[in-house]
Formats: sequence, structure tokens, C-alpha cells
Amino acid sequence: MNNSIRAEVITIGDEILFGQITDTNTQWIGTELTNIGIRPVRKSSVGDQADAILQILHEAHERADVIIITGGLGPTKDDITKKTLCQYFGVELVRNEQALALVTSFFEKRGRDMTDLNRGQADLPANAIYMQNDWGTAPGMWFEHQERVYVSLPGVPFEMKHLMTNRILPKLKEHFKTPIIKHKIIRTVGIGESFLAERIEAWEDALPAHIKLAYLPHFGQVRLRLTATGDNEVTLDRELDEQVQKVLPLIEKNVFGYDNDELETVVGNLLKEKNLTLATAESCTGGYVASRITSVPGSSAYFQGSIVSYSNDIKIKQLGVRPETLEQFGAVSEETIRQMAEGVRKVLNTDVGIATSGIAGPDGGTPDKPVGTVWIACATDQRTVTRLLKLGQYRDQNIQLTSTYLLNLLRETMIERVKE
Amino acid sequence: MNNSIRAEVITIGDEILFGQITDTNTQWIGTELTNIGIRPVRKSSVGDQADAILQILHEAHERADVIIITGGLGPTKDDITKKTLCQYFGVELVRNEQALALVTSFFEKRGRDMTDLNRGQADLPANAIYMQNDWGTAPGMWFEHQERVYVSLPGVPFEMKHLMTNRILPKLKEHFKTPIIKHKIIRTVGIGESFLAERIEAWEDALPAHIKLAYLPHFGQVRLRLTATGDNEVTLDRELDEQVQKVLPLIEKNVFGYDNDELETVVGNLLKEKNLTLATAESCTGGYVASRITSVPGSSAYFQGSIVSYSNDIKIKQLGVRPETLEQFGAVSEETIRQMAEGVRKVLNTDVGIATSGIAGPDGGTPDKPVGTVWIACATDQRTVTRLLKLGQYRDQNIQLTSTYLLNLLRETMIERVKE
Repeated sequence: MNNSIRAEVITIGDEILFGQITDTNTQWIGTELTNIGIRPVRKSSVGDQADAILQILHEAHERADVIIITGGLGPTKDDITKKTLCQYFGVELVRNEQALALVTSFFEKRGRDMTDLNRGQADLPANAIYMQNDWGTAPGMWFEHQERVYVSLPGVPFEMKHLMTNRILPKLKEHFKTPIIKHKIIRTVGIGESFLAERIEAWEDALPAHIKLAYLPHFGQVRLRLTATGDNEVTLDRELDEQVQKVLPLIEKNVFGYDNDELETVVGNLLKEKNLTLATAESCTGGYVASRITSVPGSSAYFQGSIVSYSNDIKIKQLGVRPETLEQFGAVSEETIRQMAEGVRKVLNTDVGIATSGIAGPDGGTPDKPVGTVWIACATDQRTVTRLLKLGQYRDQNIQLTSTYLLNLLRETMIERVKE
Repeated sequence: MNNSIRAEVITIGDEILFGQITDTNTQWIGTELTNIGIRPVRKSSVGDQADAILQILHEAHERADVIIITGGLGPTKDDITKKTLCQYFGVELVRNEQALALVTSFFEKRGRDMTDLNRGQADLPANAIYMQNDWGTAPGMWFEHQERVYVSLPGVPFEMKHLMTNRILPKLKEHFKTPIIKHKIIRTVGIGESFLAERIEAWEDALPAHIKLAYLPHFGQVRLRLTATGDNEVTLDRELDEQVQKVLPLIEKNVFGYDNDELETVVGNLLKEKNLTLATAESCTGGYVASRITSVPGSSAYFQGSIVSYSNDIKIKQLGVRPETLEQFGAVSEETIRQMAEGVRKVLNTDVGIATSGIAGPDGGTPDKPVGTVWIACATDQRTVTRLLKLGQYRDQNIQLTSTYLLNLLRETMIERVKE
């Protein structure tokens, strides 16, 4: 990789240095640059002081071909990136009409008045190439200066990602003639990283040298990322496909999709294909399963609704769980979860009902049912399947994992259904 | 702040540069240093190459009084921090008997054999002061070199935190006679960054030189962070409190808390104080409001449940919305949202009912009701308050913002209630 294009990623903001916000931008940028064959050599954060920003720019110029700067583009006084870039490049701030039109329309659409601070967001260093930010009022900027590329982006993660994905990465690929790197991601659920690694070991060891494998685990899911480097896109794509076909039989049950497929989207597509409707009954996940399902545009085609039954009273009155069941077995039991899934299906009049009930923590655990004990269920006209999860002690993680395992149970149920 | 002790935090590892792991260490270290009055001036990540490490050490020496290095202390070959530190300081690696005893006992306790690689973990640069790591085999090290302090720590977060908390931070406080830095964060909701800035401009301009202000915006919330530097903790705390008292009347309606307060926690505490129970009826937010409320441990004390009514059918059958209302005004209307909030309160038998109905996007907009049109409501025994939101075109953002504005409407309703 020594001949590759070198990148330096700089984040600007006291709040990052002082540890008051989590910087997720540089990790994301590091991944994306690596993905297009540009090699990050340094990541730095500096405060909102002109001298510190100037110093890092001069340093970065010495060791990198492309310098990506995020942060410090907001309208308030503590944001000085643009002024400092002017000083660095030896240019003036100039109002950009395209940028002004965008800021103006942003405020008009919301029926809000624009202040001079807002108008100032359309002022760019004179040598900037304007990169339109569709998601906010702070523009992206591209500079070419003494054989280096400088990119300045807002620090708000979704605005930065939008600009990188749609404007900057394509332009970087074009500007530097980067080698061709192709990725294929196999998305798995319900199998741990080390079990997965054991199962596919022989295949992994036989991968050709120009195809690399990475395991990217995240809350009950593992992404297997294959990266192929070469000079022919068609060949690389074919080689990647061949490798996928080889490994698939070893892990087929756990593969739910590829690349950017999300579990909630895959499940939604299965429901649409089969023309089935869905409802959820949630206790320990408190609405999180429904919110994942409805994060998918168009989910109203199959998702009818949810009853979040945090109290036993609602389990009884809204879902029809029998009081005796709750008394004898408790809310966190196979008997209750079965009645919840079947109940919501009936009450909300859907084809499928899924349900969660468990002890998310940190309180509420007992020796019999420690924190992390969770029941999930999926009920259809054909059958009700229940599953017991034994999770950890952290509330957030338990909610995350429960929702993933329940969506996976729903996915498996939908796939089984085909076979009948 | 120019006279304060300056710190540089360096992380070593290709995996961080390439975005393969999340670096949580530097944020934590930044917070801890700031809390003892040491000012982080730069954060950097470099790869596992000796020349890159030497370069950053030389640079850091120029701008910082204390340099904290994490990572690169594992037993494998790609971890070269110690060798490079030797080169930098011009010393040899020397086996440290205390460190060796610890590594040995670590392996004995686990009944595992020690390799030469493991024994090598007890080799330290000759000028190192050994800092015992009770939680792993990689030692911490303290160096004093040309009027600078260098600290080298393992990158494993819990080992690093243990060493920082118990060994390094106390020693830093003792070594440097540190100025004191205090922070106070005012948390606001429902007012944009630039409007906030205009409203408090006079106050901001009148802040004394040793108190700085930063704006930290995030989805409908803005954190105002005040940072005061001096030599007397009690005085600084008093000055920060005085500034908060001065600015508060200008923005009182928008302030929901301080420091680490979260909106969902604040709202939960208000409900608990007043001994009120809550239910939600959600359409466009699809369960997200309930999931935010239930992300708070102990929320079952006041939160009873939610009816997520994605379909009109459920709005009618479960929430008691009148079919004529839906027909005449549509699901996204003041009339419907009122019946949803009042309906869920009645059906789930709670004191308070809150509701959302809107067009989250990307589809479903009309000229009259474009994507981003959202109604929210809060119903109590005393009254029902409704509000129309005009949001943007992005589904995720619309869901996020709606949930924040609804929690804020609930907060305001609870506060108004006191006054009656």
C-alpha cells in the first residue's frame, strides 16, 4: 500500500478534544477511504483555535495527498473553520449564490426567518469548489492547493456522510486514479463471530491473495466483508460472486442479505411477497421492534400496529393474556409470550403477530430469571414458535439484541412458510 | 486558557486509522484530563509504523506538556510502541522484575504456559517508571524527558481506564500544579442554534475572558457548554452558576436540564414527582417515542404502554378515533391527533396520553400536507394541547424530531400543571 494515495482526517472542535461528544465521523471516513483504496495515515482532532487549525493544515500538507476536515462550519461564533481556511489559502470569503439560494430555500420551506448568521453560511473561501449539502445549511467545500486536495465538511454526521457518499468519494476516485477495489458484504444473523470463523475456516484459508476477508460484528449480526483489489472491475465482481457461492452452503441459514440489506427491510419484503400483515406486542423492548419495522419507508403496506404492554394490566385488557397465566408463570414466561403473540394477531387482526417479554435490566432480575432473560414469539395461522434468550446485563444491548433475534425469528418463519 | 497544562493524546494502531475499530479511549481521556484542569490541545491516531510514531512524538513534544499514548503494547509483532519509545528516548529495553512477577502470576493463576512473547511484556525502556496494571499483562509506563511527561498505556479500554484512574491522573495532578477547569452544560430543546445565539448575544458578549461558550446542536436540542478556567474550584462553580442564572431568564422555556440530563429522564422524573401515569399513541413515529421513554431504567413506574396505530383501522378500533373524523379531516389532522391522545389515555387508563400522526416520508405527501407535516398532542384530565410541526423531507430525522418535540410538549404540560 506504500504507493497509495495518503489521507489525513482532521476533526475540528473543542467538544471533541474535551471528550464531550463522541467522534463517530473519523471512523466512518477511515472506512470509506480505505474502501476506495486511499490510505489514512493520520487522524487528528484540534480545538476551535485558528493557530491550532493552521498548524495542523501545514503539517497535513507535508504528509498527505488529501486532507479531509470536518466540523466548525456552524453559524455561531465558535465556528471558525472557514475564516481559518481563508487565512491558510490566502484568499477572501466570497458569498456563493448557489449556497445562498439553498440556505434561503431551506428557511423558506420551514417558514422561518433568516438571520445574518444564516446568510453567512453561504460565504465560502474564494478558491472553494462548492459541494451542495442537500441535508443542511452548511456547505461542503473542495479545494485544490499546491498539489493537494482539501475537503471541508460539516461535522453533523448525517450531513457529512451524505456529502462524502454523493459528492466527495466519487470526486476523489476520479481525481486520483485509484486502483479498483470491490467489496461484497454477506450479512449474517444469529451466529457469533468465532463460531462463524470456525465454520468457514477452510474456505477463508483458500481465498486468493487479492481477496481479503473481514468480520464486522454488531449486536447479534456479523457482516462478512470481502474486499478484492485489481484492475478489472468485471473480473473482480465475478471472483467475488464465485467466493460467495462457495461459502454460502456453509452458512446459508444465517445469511439474510448482502451489502446494505437491513434485517427490517428483508423481513418487510418477505411479508409483502406473501401478502401478509404484521403486528407486534412488546413488553421489554418498549416499542423498539415496531420502530425498527417502521423505519423502513413503505412499511405501512404490511405493518398494522403494535401494542406496547409495559404493565400487566395492558397485557390482560388489550392483548387478552389470561390473569391466571400471569399469576402462575409470570410475565416473562413461555406461556405469557405465546398468549401475547397470538393475542396481538387476533386483536389487531393481522396474519402474523410477534412478541417480546423479558427483563431488560438493570433491576427486576431474580435468581430464577436473571436480568437478560427474554422470551420472544412469532404466531401465524399455522403455528406459534417461542424462543428463550439468555442475554447480558445491559439494558440497551438487551433491547437491541431482542429486537434483532425477534426479527430473525420472523424471517425464519416466513422462509419456512414457503416450503409448506 | 493559554497558561494551562497542555496535553496531547495519541492512539497507535492501523485498525483505528482504517476505521476497523471504534476508538472510545480518546474521548474518555479527553474528559478526564479536562476534569483535572489539563487541557487537551490535540488528539492523533497513527498507524503501527515506527517512523509515523517517531514523527508524532517529536511534534507532540513541541506543543504539549504531557503526552498520553495508548495502544501498541500487545505481545504480537505488529505492536512496536515500546521499541519506538526506546529509539525516541535513546535508551535500551530492560527487563523489569516487578513487571515480570506480575506477568508470571497472571499466567500461573490461569494455569497457562508463558511464551517468550509474554515475557517480553516485562521489558520496559530503561527510563520508564513502571505503572502496575492490575487487569492485564501490558504495563503502564511514565517517562519524564526534556521537561515533558510521556505516558504509555495499553489500548484495551478497561485496562487503560484502570491505569489512568488509579495511577496516572493522581500522579499528573501532583506533578503539574494544574489550573482548575470547570464545565456547566445548559440543555435546551425546541429552539434552533442561530435563534438561541441571537437571543443570548448580549449575555455571550459580556462573558468574562476566563469563561467560554460553545453551542452543541443535536436533533432539536442544543447544549450550551460553559467552560471556566481559574485556580479556585469554589469560585469557578459560583461564577458558572451566576452566569447560568443570568442567561436563564432569556431561554427559560427551552431549558430542560443540565449536564448529563436527558429529555426522556427529565420527563420521567416530572411524571414520578406528580405521581402520574403515561401512555402513547403513535402513528408516524411507529413506536419510537415509547422506545425512548422505556430506554430509561425504572420507566415502568410511570409508563403503562403504547398503541402504535399505523393503520386507520387500529386508530378506530383501539383508540376510538371516529371514522367520520378520519374521513373528513384525514389521519394527519388536528381533529384526529386530539382523539388519539384522548383515546389512548382512556383506553390504557392513564393520567396522560401523548400522540403523533404525520407524514414521515419519503412517500405519502400531498400539496396540502407535504412530507414533514406532523401533528402532536398531549392530553390530561385538564386539557388537550395540540401542535403542528413542519419538518423536513427525511424520514429518520422526522421521526427523531417528532419524538423530541412531543417529549418537550409533555414536559411543558407537566410544568404548567404545577402552576394551576
